[in-house]
Amino acid sequence: MDNFSYQSPTRYIFGRGVENQTGSLTASMGCKKVLIVYGQGSAIRSGLLHRVKVSLHEAGIAYVELPGIKPNPTDGPVRIGIELCRAVGVDGLIAVGGGSVIDTAKAIAAGVLYEGDFWDFYSGKAVVQQALPVGVVLTIPAAGSEGSGNSVITNEANRQKISIRTDTALRPKFAVMNPELTLTLPLDQTAAGVADMMAHIMERYFSPTADVETTDRISEGLLMAIIHEAKRIVADPSNYEARANIMWSGTLAHNGICGCGRREDWSSHGLEHVLSALYGVAHGAGLAVVFPAYMTYVTAKNPVKIAQFGRRVFGVVEPDDTVAALEGIKCLREFFTHIGLPLTLGQLGITEPDFDKFVADFHRDKGTPWGAYYPLYPADTEAIYRLML
Amino acid sequence: MDNFSYQSPTRYIFGRGVENQTGSLTASMGCKKVLIVYGQGSAIRSGLLHRVKVSLHEAGIAYVELPGIKPNPTDGPVRIGIELCRAVGVDGLIAVGGGSVIDTAKAIAAGVLYEGDFWDFYSGKAVVQQALPVGVVLTIPAAGSEGSGNSVITNEANRQKISIRTDTALRPKFAVMNPELTLTLPLDQTAAGVADMMAHIMERYFSPTADVETTDRISEGLLMAIIHEAKRIVADPSNYEARANIMWSGTLAHNGICGCGRREDWSSHGLEHVLSALYGVAHGAGLAVVFPAYMTYVTAKNPVKIAQFGRRVFGVVEPDDTVAALEGIKCLREFFTHIGLPLTLGQLGITEPDFDKFVADFHRDKGTPWGAYYPLYPADTEAIYRLML
Repeated sequence: MDNFSYQSPTRYIFGRGVENQTGSLTASMGCKKVLIVYGQGSAIRSGLLHRVKVSLHEAGIAYVELPGIKPNPTDGPVRIGIELCRAVGVDGLIAVGGGSVIDTAKAIAAGVLYEGDFWDFYSGKAVVQQALPVGVVLTIPAAGSEGSGNSVITNEANRQKISIRTDTALRPKFAVMNPELTLTLPLDQTAAGVADMMAHIMERYFSPTADVETTDRISEGLLMAIIHEAKRIVADPSNYEARANIMWSGTLAHNGICGCGRREDWSSHGLEHVLSALYGVAHGAGLAVVFPAYMTYVTAKNPVKIAQFGRRVFGVVEPDDTVAALEGIKCLREFFTHIGLPLTLGQLGITEPDFDKFVADFHRDKGTPWGAYYPLYPADTEAIYRLML
Repeated sequence: MDNFSYQSPTRYIFGRGVENQTGSLTASMGCKKVLIVYGQGSAIRSGLLHRVKVSLHEAGIAYVELPGIKPNPTDGPVRIGIELCRAVGVDGLIAVGGGSVIDTAKAIAAGVLYEGDFWDFYSGKAVVQQALPVGVVLTIPAAGSEGSGNSVITNEANRQKISIRTDTALRPKFAVMNPELTLTLPLDQTAAGVADMMAHIMERYFSPTADVETTDRISEGLLMAIIHEAKRIVADPSNYEARANIMWSGTLAHNGICGCGRREDWSSHGLEHVLSALYGVAHGAGLAVVFPAYMTYVTAKNPVKIAQFGRRVFGVVEPDDTVAALEGIKCLREFFTHIGLPLTLGQLGITEPDFDKFVADFHRDKGTPWGAYYPLYPADTEAIYRLML
């Protein structure tokens, strides 16, 4: 086990009706005027945004709004939000939505207190030292941004999709999580979210660090719970209990608990970010295509952890590591198919893949080599992309 | 799943040599003069206390000391500590030790800022609203107090052992956790700690709340990791990796993550507190006697969760719930015996048990009925105590 430092200070308020506590929670983070960031209108149509505003109003908190955040969020709205916050004198942000909305709110929260251009944080020119407090009303269980210190933004000019991670500076102060809000989430979006949260665990699980039994068992337990509950949602999308377990699992998948004491990999996210930056594919759907390909490739290099995944998560009984690993990948593919996820570039709508560009973009964004479980050089990267055909 | 609120803001600094960060961590919680609370001298003999003092000194932090805290800590030293803090003008506490030391430091931290007698918090007359910041240098993985908002103190006058739980007021600001410090921990103390951390998980796991798959899987994963690593320590007490996994598991067992979304039981802790208050037995050893007896009794009333424990934690393959439950309890007893724990009152040194007094004390402290998985009335309580013969 490696030395580590871990702190996850976010307050989670979970269950039916909890969005009505948004106002008092916002007041408890010391705010009087906030920017509400949200997406493309579903929070308006469902009445959620109205309830959040009523709750803020009852707590005596003023607000301005930044609507219209799209999936794979870009730098443009971040700059608009920063200007708005400065002009109005905002002292906190409330993100009402999923990962794209939350990541945008985090970027604004850090950018408002920074003299230079906020993209400096994403290009590596600067490190986030401080940010306005951010509260979250979560509507999509997937990105885990409600409990993480991370933010992912795509630069519109060069299509670079960059993820940054802070220890605590960008962790939300609170996350209001009502599973009822997810009961009407379409199955394709639910499935993409499931792939995303599973990926957050697996990026940490496929690690070269030995002797992390505690962290391994937590990771495997979360994966088993997610697989079990996702199948229940496919059978009955209005199952509150299944939705609740998925929502909570998505937070724990990415709040860092699955990474304690080990090096993390993050190759697959890098491989997927190239695809979603170029084609705008749903991040989770892209991950469903990337992960089995990645796992298949590295099984030939180092099957140990892929085999453990097969045995412990899917109950594979095979003495040989390579066989157990491949059997586990087969189970993973079957599960992804069962919940309606794509498995190939073609199913993602990428019919004429430019592998040279994929490889070049991956190593431009990540460097060479990249990855902890098995360090990827361009030949490895190309081979993995070709396994997605 | 039940609605819940969860926040675990403690910063964990984990690994070799991390005690040397105590000074900078103490400074980061805004302290200039602290009370160091510790036990009966092992921290002096090992040189740990010296290293902590050097670290504090280098960070410009003054300190006074409260040594001599014993297992099953009592109210006397808490009152001395409160007076000392007030006289010297302390602005924080550093607990160097295990649960007894940490719980004493927490009681002092709350008592210093309270006008009345600190026991009011334990007798239920008052609720902890604020406390001085507490930092921890952990030496014994067991109680989980380094990450919990709990504190257990025994009243010397009437031998009442009372546990209080706060949401965040009594959670340490940081916990410095170096598994090297536990390499020389005697096996009996190690085993008692293992029983304690397993009990913290099982008190939450034996719940009447259905549909908590995520929390169940985390709990089961932690139990499996603890069992696996405890056996490795018995085989080689100097195994750093096994000690590290046990140490981290002990924190997660009690920081609340295993309770999210469900009612918790806590019958067995109540049953044990009666024994340790009357006889001063080691809490963990007492729990090893109590738990199998409790589980056996409630299997006849409601075997569902005990059976799931047997199947998922010990891999029992039995279709019948009662059979699976009893087989799981058998495995648990065998594991406790393997690591050197007692299984009967006699093995605890309690040769002439006064069952009437046990039952009366239990219901005096806890009320009637007590317990969530199966509510205990005096007849149930006596039957469970008799199963410990």
